[in-house]
This record gives sequence, C-alpha cells and structure tokens, in this order.
Amino acid sequence: MSGVVERLRAALGHRVDTSPDSLALARADKSGHAASGLPLAVVNATSVEDVQQTMRIATETRTPVVVRGAATGLAGGANAGEGELALSLRAMDRILEIRPDDLLAVVEPGILNADLNTALAEHGLWWAPDPASRAISTVGGNIATGAGGLLCAKYGVVRDAVLGVDLVIADGRLLHLGHRTVKGVTGLDLTSLVIGSEGTLGVVVGATLKLRRLVPGEVCTIAATFPDVRAAAVASAAVTASGAQPAIMELMDAHSLAAVHALLKLEPPTPGATQLTIQTDGPAAVTEADAIAEVLRASGGTVAVSHDREEGERLLTVRRMMHPAMESLGTALIEDVSVPRSALPAMFDEIARVEREHGVTIPTVAHAGDGNLHPNFIFDAPAGSAIGAGGIVEAPAYIWDAADDLFRAALRLGGTLTGEHGVGVLKRRWLADELGDDQWELQRQIKAVFDPLGILNPGKVFSR
Amino acid sequence: MSGVVERLRAALGHRVDTSPDSLALARADKSGHAASGLPLAVVNATSVEDVQQTMRIATETRTPVVVRGAATGLAGGANAGEGELALSLRAMDRILEIRPDDLLAVVEPGILNADLNTALAEHGLWWAPDPASRAISTVGGNIATGAGGLLCAKYGVVRDAVLGVDLVIADGRLLHLGHRTVKGVTGLDLTSLVIGSEGTLGVVVGATLKLRRLVPGEVCTIAATFPDVRAAAVASAAVTASGAQPAIMELMDAHSLAAVHALLKLEPPTPGATQLTIQTDGPAAVTEADAIAEVLRASGGTVAVSHDREEGERLLTVRRMMHPAMESLGTALIEDVSVPRSALPAMFDEIARVEREHGVTIPTVAHAGDGNLHPNFIFDAPAGSAIGAGGIVEAPAYIWDAADDLFRAALRLGGTLTGEHGVGVLKRRWLADELGDDQWELQRQIKAVFDPLGILNPGKVFSR
Repeated sequence: MSGVVERLRAALGHRVDTSPDSLALARADKSGHAASGLPLAVVNATSVEDVQQTMRIATETRTPVVVRGAATGLAGGANAGEGELALSLRAMDRILEIRPDDLLAVVEPGILNADLNTALAEHGLWWAPDPASRAISTVGGNIATGAGGLLCAKYGVVRDAVLGVDLVIADGRLLHLGHRTVKGVTGLDLTSLVIGSEGTLGVVVGATLKLRRLVPGEVCTIAATFPDVRAAAVASAAVTASGAQPAIMELMDAHSLAAVHALLKLEPPTPGATQLTIQTDGPAAVTEADAIAEVLRASGGTVAVSHDREEGERLLTVRRMMHPAMESLGTALIEDVSVPRSALPAMFDEIARVEREHGVTIPTVAHAGDGNLHPNFIFDAPAGSAIGAGGIVEAPAYIWDAADDLFRAALRLGGTLTGEHGVGVLKRRWLADELGDDQWELQRQIKAVFDPLGILNPGKVFSR
Repeated sequence: MSGVVERLRAALGHRVDTSPDSLALARADKSGHAASGLPLAVVNATSVEDVQQTMRIATETRTPVVVRGAATGLAGGANAGEGELALSLRAMDRILEIRPDDLLAVVEPGILNADLNTALAEHGLWWAPDPASRAISTVGGNIATGAGGLLCAKYGVVRDAVLGVDLVIADGRLLHLGHRTVKGVTGLDLTSLVIGSEGTLGVVVGATLKLRRLVPGEVCTIAATFPDVRAAAVASAAVTASGAQPAIMELMDAHSLAAVHALLKLEPPTPGATQLTIQTDGPAAVTEADAIAEVLRASGGTVAVSHDREEGERLLTVRRMMHPAMESLGTALIEDVSVPRSALPAMFDEIARVEREHGVTIPTVAHAGDGNLHPNFIFDAPAGSAIGAGGIVEAPAYIWDAADDLFRAALRLGGTLTGEHGVGVLKRRWLADELGDDQWELQRQIKAVFDPLGILNPGKVFSR
C-alpha cells in the first residue's frame, strides 16, 4: 500500500500530505462519526489534472478514494479511514466565470458557499442554496450532498441551482455533464444524478451554477410564539395553506427555544412555549407579512412583526444559535427527516412518542415551509465511549434505537430519511427500507457503471 | 413473433389492438418521421398491472416495446415499427390525488396537460410546464421528453415540477422513485434520470407532481416590433439584463411574422419586421411591464402595452399560430436548439448564414427568455418522396445538411441540440457530438442497467 503514496508523491509532490494531524482530521466530519484507522494520505488537489492523476493511480492500485471539501458533513460521507486516500478539493476554490447576462457562474468545487455569494453580490446576483453551514461549507460539498437550507420552499435546493458539473470518474477520465442553457434535454440527466451522490459516482471538479438576481425590496420578519409544538406546526401549515410564500419559515420546539434562550442569557420562555420565525421578501413582502401575521394570530400565536432588516436578523439569531445551544446540553446526533408539509403536526407527535418510549430528549427545529425536521438526539458522552481524533463521540446504541423508531415513523408518514444531509455512513442501514430492495440494487448497479472497481467512497450510502 | 400477440391477447384481451389503422397510426408522431414497417400490436394499457404484464411478456419473448402517449412528439421518439410493440398509456388518465396543502398531485401518465390544469384550477393550483402542445400532449409524454414551454424562464421546466415517478422496468418490476416531500436526498436521484429519458429506461406509470398556486394579480402584455431579428434578439437580452423577470418572452423573426399575418389575414408587417411578445404577471406585473417597455423603446422597438388579460391573449395569438402558418408554407422540420441567452443574437446570425449557404428558408421563433429557438426548415414534399401512413413526409437530405450545420453552430455557441423536444430518432446521430464519446458510452451503460436486453425503445436516442 505504501507504493500508492510513493507514486502519488512522485506525481504530485508536496500536495500529498501524510502528517499525523492531517490524517487524523481526515477521519471525521461534523457528524460525530469517525472512520476506523487512519487514511494513507491526504491529497490536496489544486487542479483538475491533479484529480485525474490521483484517480488514475487509485485505479491502477485499487485504492479507495474519499473526496472531501470542508468536512462539514453530518452523515460521515466524507470520512476517510484505513487503507483509503482522502482527496481534498478545498484548495480548488476559484471562480472561473460570472455571467450576469446568462445568470450563471462557473466555479471550482472548493469555494465556500458564503465566499461565492460575497463575490456574486457585487454583480447583484446570488446562488440560492443556503445550508445553515453556508459560511463554512463548500459548493462542491453542497452539490455532493444535494444540500438544502432555510430558503428552499421559495428558492429551491441545490438540484434546482446547478446547470452542469465536470466529473472525474474512477479511472481518471473527465466528463462534462449538463449544459450552459436554461433548457436542455440532450441525453440522460447525469448532472442531477451526480447531485446528492455523495462521492460515490465521481469527483466533481467544476460546476456551472444557475444564479438568481438579488431580491429587491424589503424583508419583513415575524416571530410568533405558541403554547406547544403542535400548535406551531398547525399554524405553519395554515400559513402554507393560505397561499403565502415565505422566504423562511423556521419552527423551534420548546426544548430548542429554552436551550437557546439559556445560551444567549435571554429571559426564559414560558414553559412549553414554541416559536415560528418567518421572513417574507420581494415586492409583496409587507403585504404578505401582514397576511401571515393574521393567520398566525388566528392560529393562537403571539405575534411580533418587524419591517427592519437588521431587527429581523436579530430575531433569526435565536434560530441560528440552535447548534451551539445543543452543544451546551450534551452531545447531539443531528437528524434530518423530511415529511410532506401536512404531516408536520403528526411528525411532532411521533417525536414526542419516541421521547417518551425511549426516555431520550430530542430538541427539534424544522424548516416548516418545506417539512424538513432536524431532531437533535442528546446524550452524554459516557466515560468508556469510543473517542477518536478531535474528541469524536459516537452515538450509543440506545440513541440509534430511538433514531430508528423516528426514521420509520417519518417513512410511514410519506416522508424520507434525509432531506438535505445525505446518507453517508450513518443512514446506510435504512436506505433499502426507503428505496425498496429492487431500487436499492438498481442504484448500486448504476454506481458500478461509473466505478466498476468500487474504489469511490466504498462503504458509504450503498453498504448494508 | 405472432406468439407474442397471442400471449398478450390471452393476458389483456381486447386491449391488444391489431387493426391496420391503429398499427399505421402507431408508426408516427408529429415530427414528420415514421418508423419502417408496422408494429405487431398496440397495447392500450388501463392499469399498472397491464403494463407489468406487457413488459413481462416482452422480456420473455425479447420483443421491443415503444411507449406512447398522445403521439405529439417532434423527434420520432414514440414511433413503433416492424417487430415492435406499441404500448399506449393514453387510457391511463386518472387524477389519483390532489393535495392543496402539500402542493402536489398524483396522476396517471395518460392525462392531457390541459385537462390536468383544468382540474387543478378548481383548487387554485396549476402544474407549471406548458409546452405549446399542452392541449393535446400527456403529462407522461411531457415527463418522457422533459418538456419545456413558454413560461420556463420564470416557472421552470418539467424537471423542476416532478417529485417522483412510478416506473415499470423492462422485466416488469415496479419501482417507486422519488418522494412526496419538498426536500429529499435519499440515494441517487433516479426521478431526474427518468425525466427526459424518452422511454429508454422504463415505463412511467404514475407521477407525483409539484404544483404551484395560481398567480394572483394582473397579467400585462407587451408587443414590440423591430426592424430586424438581431435588434429583437439584442432587445430581449437587454430585458433579461435589466433584471425584469417576464413570465413569457417570445421572439418571432420576419419570415414567421409575415407567414402568421398572411394566415390570419392581418395587414402585412413592414418587410423585415420582427416581434417580441412579452407577458408579466404577479404582484409586480404592471411595474415590470412599464420597465420592460422602456427597455424595449431604448432598444429601438415600437411598443404597445396592454393591461387587459383578453387583449393580451389576442396579442399572443400571433405567436400561437406559428405552427399552422408554417404548414401554409410547405412542410416543416421543426427544430429545437437552445443557447445561453447572451448568444441569441449570434445564433440568429448563424441561422441567416445557414439560410444563405444552403439556400433554404428557416422561419424561427424563440423562447427568448431562456434561449430556446425553434428554427422551422421549410421544404416542398417532392413527387417521389417517401410518404407513409397519414401523409408523412420525411425531410430530404439537403434539409438535414442545413440542420447539421445549424446544430453544430449551436454547440459552438455553448448550446445544446435540444431544449425541450428530445433526441428520439431525428437527433441521435448528433448525440455523441454534444456528449462526447465517453459520456455517450456511459449513458448507454446506464440504460443497460434498467434494460439489459435492450427491449425498451431500441434505436432511439442511443443509436448511431
């Protein structure tokens, strides 16, 4: 195996990193999961040719390759372990082209979502996908996971915002998938197939992104509190049913709200209180905000409306502090089920049931406008737990039992295992439950077309 | 081979149609192309089980199957010929579910786009894809071709409006692809792969569609004439660059405009005159229309604005009469290239060049908001030309030479062979030019995963 590293070093020089710290870091993402053992090396690619050379050597030596960006994933999909190469694209972060007239940009995969959007804003443009990690996650990682975010119900997910990708497949060949045009139906849509494929089909070395113009006009923010989570869920469904189209509609349950208030040293909320935070934008922002406020009041909410952009950001801060607040409670397994919007109240009932029956606490936030929930399973890292590099703590079995119960409830309600985080390592054992055995096998065969030797992210997504 | 028909008849009874008229009709679509010879039978499926039985018998007997809807295709993709079965889904036309709260509908594939939208309108909803054929084309056909239409720049194409499909694959197994949720990244996105796959991967027997609420507010219509086509194309680019987002922006060149005026017995336009017809909708319709009118005047246009919905429809009638007007000129090969919006003026220059160099007339309309052009190659059906059932006339070689020149020009400009009609039979020989040989071969291998015996629409899309 050391022959691989030597060959890579001969080809790529100092871009092949085998320092113990780098190898240890490459084992983990932000999910709490870490791969077993240390990878052989971290290749820091700086060009498409670097990626092609790496894949050629990997193919010749049958060495598994795990593609990484900024390692902000929440499903373990980019974690590299024993006998594997970590191929980092983080250094490939150039913007190659911005075309305001065609509303597109061509970028390398390693650029951070927020950095891209800063550059686009100078042209009055933006790339709409806005995962909560946007300040620290890469466009390539957003594409690999099919990321979502807060604005999806109105402005779409990654799949709606990519025209084409350049893909290096397992044997090192470079394919140009997709097109630069708004419409295009020439052949099979391999661009969409690659989006969300989590490094199992190839290495995304470039992307042609579909842009939007920055939305002119005001932004209005509405914060409404409710006596319990079901009431907030029913109110959010009423907002959707009213025909209003909020840009953002975030729901925080009582656990979440209390934890954030404690972290920010705000006055504690009324026990049991839950919150909806809603933003409207565009030319009808004010009218829509007023109409939504009426719906929320009629649904039993206590409502405050702000027409000030900065005050709105302050109201949203409570939602944005969710992750730090969870860390203050213990260790969190952050989950990601999605259900049809009408099933949100029933899904919150199921979460309460799982909490009761399994004796666990599951603070939950939801992108209520699109039915995507993030239940946070809280646990204490026990003294004897498996702790890897960087203080990684794996969720214990009783937490996974509770998560299993919750996943199956989401599927029963017509939902899906993962709305935006991906399958990675952590959800691979439920994949066939959702897809069915026939589709699961078909998907594996499609992967094999791109990667006949099975060297691209083996053990992720399609392992049982 | 007659054994196939007997087995089908034993299983499906009178739903197996072998009348000469039905067989002859199944050879053709609206492209002008017809398959060689007559198919063995037309199976009129009325249920998913009918489709599964047909595919099981087809697999056992290695009989090719061509799936058909309303036969309005423009690339020959649904034409069935000698030794093949035509599998019609037109009779599977039920709406199974409409959910205003979840903004989705579940339908069978044979329902007409317009019939679905009539039913949805009662709930204040619509399915956005609006191919020009919407009154006569099926939702299943729209999915199979990845159809577009007039409203795409603002409201998206079929790919943006389908959450999931039920697919019967070659051996008769039924797969449920996709989900009912707004977000979902569980496994590979096979739904997107099936959209636009033109019957090569499986039989779409059901679809979960993503709906929109009917857009409230006014509709404004702007008609602007220009002295030549380049001026109109530059003006349409200026509208896009201004940040306005028209719902519809249609460009007619001088040939097209003159032909429609003649057909409708309107006063002839000034020689060389071209037209842009633009509609704005939603809460900012009037403001946007006024701003667009200013841009058009600054670009040298003679502009008329109407705030009346019916008057707007009258202005659009000129555009909608394009196809009948072409038929009045001769026989038309209707093409479908798409280019980045900024390349529209250059593409019109190329069309003029092809007209000059090949001595053909190519009246062209364009969905100028998204860069999709429909050049109509006009020819006379010569006395000795191949005329099949229903008066089908194949385009002669000199027309294909001119089309070849035009396709290559579109590719050079960063465009694509087909924006919304598909590859079918008529464009298969250019497919590898756009995809590259490596991707072309990869796509064929993916098809083989779904259809290892090659019985699904053989000879279409992936034949050279």
